[in-house]
Amino acid sequence: MSNVYSVIMAGGKGTRFWPASREARPKQLLAIGSNESMIRQTVTRLGDLCPAERSIIVTGASHVADIRTQIPELPAANILAEPTGRNTAPCVALAAAVVAKRDPEGIMAVFPADHVITDPAKLIAVVNNVATFLDRHPDRLVTIGIEPAFAETGYGYIQKGAALANGLFAVEAFREKPDLPTAEEYVASGAYLWNAGMFFWKATTILTMIERHMPDLMKAIAPLADAIGTPAFDDVMAKVYPTLPSESIDYGVMEKAAAEGSVVVAPADPGWNDVGSWRSLYDLLAPDANGNRSEGELIAIESTGVLARSDKRLIAVVGVDDVVVVETPDAILVVHKEKAQLVKNVVDELKRRGRTDLL
Amino acid sequence: MSNVYSVIMAGGKGTRFWPASREARPKQLLAIGSNESMIRQTVTRLGDLCPAERSIIVTGASHVADIRTQIPELPAANILAEPTGRNTAPCVALAAAVVAKRDPEGIMAVFPADHVITDPAKLIAVVNNVATFLDRHPDRLVTIGIEPAFAETGYGYIQKGAALANGLFAVEAFREKPDLPTAEEYVASGAYLWNAGMFFWKATTILTMIERHMPDLMKAIAPLADAIGTPAFDDVMAKVYPTLPSESIDYGVMEKAAAEGSVVVAPADPGWNDVGSWRSLYDLLAPDANGNRSEGELIAIESTGVLARSDKRLIAVVGVDDVVVVETPDAILVVHKEKAQLVKNVVDELKRRGRTDLL
Repeated sequence: MSNVYSVIMAGGKGTRFWPASREARPKQLLAIGSNESMIRQTVTRLGDLCPAERSIIVTGASHVADIRTQIPELPAANILAEPTGRNTAPCVALAAAVVAKRDPEGIMAVFPADHVITDPAKLIAVVNNVATFLDRHPDRLVTIGIEPAFAETGYGYIQKGAALANGLFAVEAFREKPDLPTAEEYVASGAYLWNAGMFFWKATTILTMIERHMPDLMKAIAPLADAIGTPAFDDVMAKVYPTLPSESIDYGVMEKAAAEGSVVVAPADPGWNDVGSWRSLYDLLAPDANGNRSEGELIAIESTGVLARSDKRLIAVVGVDDVVVVETPDAILVVHKEKAQLVKNVVDELKRRGRTDLL
Repeated sequence: MSNVYSVIMAGGKGTRFWPASREARPKQLLAIGSNESMIRQTVTRLGDLCPAERSIIVTGASHVADIRTQIPELPAANILAEPTGRNTAPCVALAAAVVAKRDPEGIMAVFPADHVITDPAKLIAVVNNVATFLDRHPDRLVTIGIEPAFAETGYGYIQKGAALANGLFAVEAFREKPDLPTAEEYVASGAYLWNAGMFFWKATTILTMIERHMPDLMKAIAPLADAIGTPAFDDVMAKVYPTLPSESIDYGVMEKAAAEGSVVVAPADPGWNDVGSWRSLYDLLAPDANGNRSEGELIAIESTGVLARSDKRLIAVVGVDDVVVVETPDAILVVHKEKAQLVKNVVDELKRRGRTDLL
C-alpha cells in the first residue's frame, strides 16, 4: 500500500531498564533479547510495509546521531528531533502534519520503538487489513488490541463493542491499568484486549480530531506545521516545540474519540511483548537446563528462575531464585522478578543522591 | 612474657570469599570488615604479647612479598615461606623447630591469620593466663575454646573434662563439625566450646608430641630443622618441604594427645569470629536503618538483610532479602546468606571451565 507511512515513536527513556538504559542510551537503542537494537528491529520488521522514504522516526534531539547510525537508510528529513519531550500528542500532531504535507491521502501507522514482535508477518497482515478498512472509512481511528494471554495488570485494556467488517470491532472504551481482580474479570469476559500503543489513521483525520479535542495544541503547533519542509524548520522546532501542551494522545484524543464512536480495534496476536521491564526480558529468553537465562557468562549453584545479563563480567549466583542480575561497567542491579517495576525507584534515588553520572 | 612467640598461620586460600579472594590474593590479605587486611589486624592485635622479633608468619611462597609489604616490621627471617601447602602439621613442626632453635624455653602461641577478635584485650589476658599455666605444666598442649553463642554447625567443638587451675579444663575430646541436633545438644549441655584453631605449647613439647604421634613427619623434617639459620635453608625448604606428609595438627596430634590427657582448654569470649564466609561478614557489620550492610555504595528498594560489598561500582537491590552481593572488577557474586558455604562450589566450577583468570 503506497500511502502508508510508519511513524516510530522513539522518545522514551526506559528507566525500568536501568542500569542497561541510561539517559544517553535509552531502551530503544539497546539490544535486549537480540543482537540488534530494539529500534533497528522495529524499522526492519516494518520494511515490507514502508520503505525507507515512508518511514519516519520521532526521537529526542540528543539521540538523533545514534539513530542515524543504527538506521542509516532513513533520509535525514525522516528523523524528527524533539528538543524536549512533550508526551505523545504533540509528537503525533507533528508527524501527522509532516505526512499530510507529503501526501494528503497518507495513512499513518504509529508504533513504539521498543516493543518486540516475534511474528512480524502476522503484524503486517493485520496492518494491511487495517489499511484496507481505513480506505473505506477514512474518518476512523484504528488501534491494535492484543489477545490477552493472562490477567496482566501492567497494561491498559481496550473494551470491544460491536463487531464490524474485516474482523474489526468498535471500541467501547479505553480502560486504565487494572488491579488484579479487575484484570481477571476483563480476561474472563473475552471482551477486552491489551492496548499495545499501535495506531492507524489517515493523517488528515487525526489532525481533525486533534483540532476538535485539543484546539490549544493545534493552535500552538500551527507555525511549526507551516515551517515543515522549509529551511526555517529547525529554528521553529527549537522555539515552538517546547511550548506545546504536554499530553498523551490517549488522554488527549483517543478516549474522547472512542466515546464518540470513532475508534475501531483490530484484534491481533503477533507475539507482542512490550519488553516493559527486566521481567519481560526474562520471559523472552529461553531457559537453560537449570531454568535460568543469561546474556553473558553465568555460573548458577542451587539457583533457578534467574536472569543474568552481563556486559562483560562473569555473574555467579548461589542459592537464589527468581532474581534478575544485571552488570554494567559502573553499576550492578539485583532485582526480584516480581518487583521489576520498581527499578524506576532506583533511578529516582540516583537523582536524589545527585548521581547524574549513573543516570 | 619474654619467651612467647606468636606463630601466625597464613597459608589458607579462602575460596569461600570468592570473588574478593583469589589464589593470588587470599583471604588473609583482604580487608574484610575493616580498613586493614586481616593479617595486619592479627599481627597488630598480638603486638602487646609479641614484639616483631618474636612474631613469626608461615605462608605460601607466592604471598611472601605481599606480607612483607603489609607487615614491614617483621624481620625477613620471621616469614617462613612454604613452597607448597602441606596442611598444618608440617607448618607447626617447622615453626616449632625455628622457635626451639632460637629459645629452647620458647612458648608458641599459634593463631590463624584470618579471624576477627573484637576484644583483643580479653584475648591477651587469656593468653597470659595460659602462658603462666604452661610455665608450671610445660608438658601440656593448650587450646582456646570459645563459649558457644548458638548451635553453630560450621565449627568443631571441644568437650571439656575436669576443671583445673586458672579456670582451665582438661580436654575430654575434640568433636567434628556436628549436625544441628548434635550442636544443639552440645550447647545445651554447657560442656562444649567452639574450636577456634588457637594453640599454645612449649616448642620442645609439641616437637616431642609430633615425634610420638607422627614419627614419619619428624624423620622427614629432620634435615630441614638442621638447616634452620644456615644459608642452605631456602634450598632445603624447596627440596624437603613438598615431601612432608600432609596432615592437620588436629588429626595428627591433638586428638591423640587429648586421649592421653595431655590437652587443656582455656574458655574465652573475646568477640571471636572466624569470618568463614560472606555470612560472617554480614554478621560483623552493623546494619543501616533498613537492616542492610554495605561496604561501598548501596541503593536498597524494598530489600532487607542484604550485604553489599563493592570494590568500586554502585550496587542496587530491589525486592530481595537476605542476599550478599559482591562486585569486583571481573566478577559478580549474588549468594543467599544461608548458602554462603557453597561459594567454594563456584570456585570448583571456574576450575572446571578453565577460567584460571578468575581464580
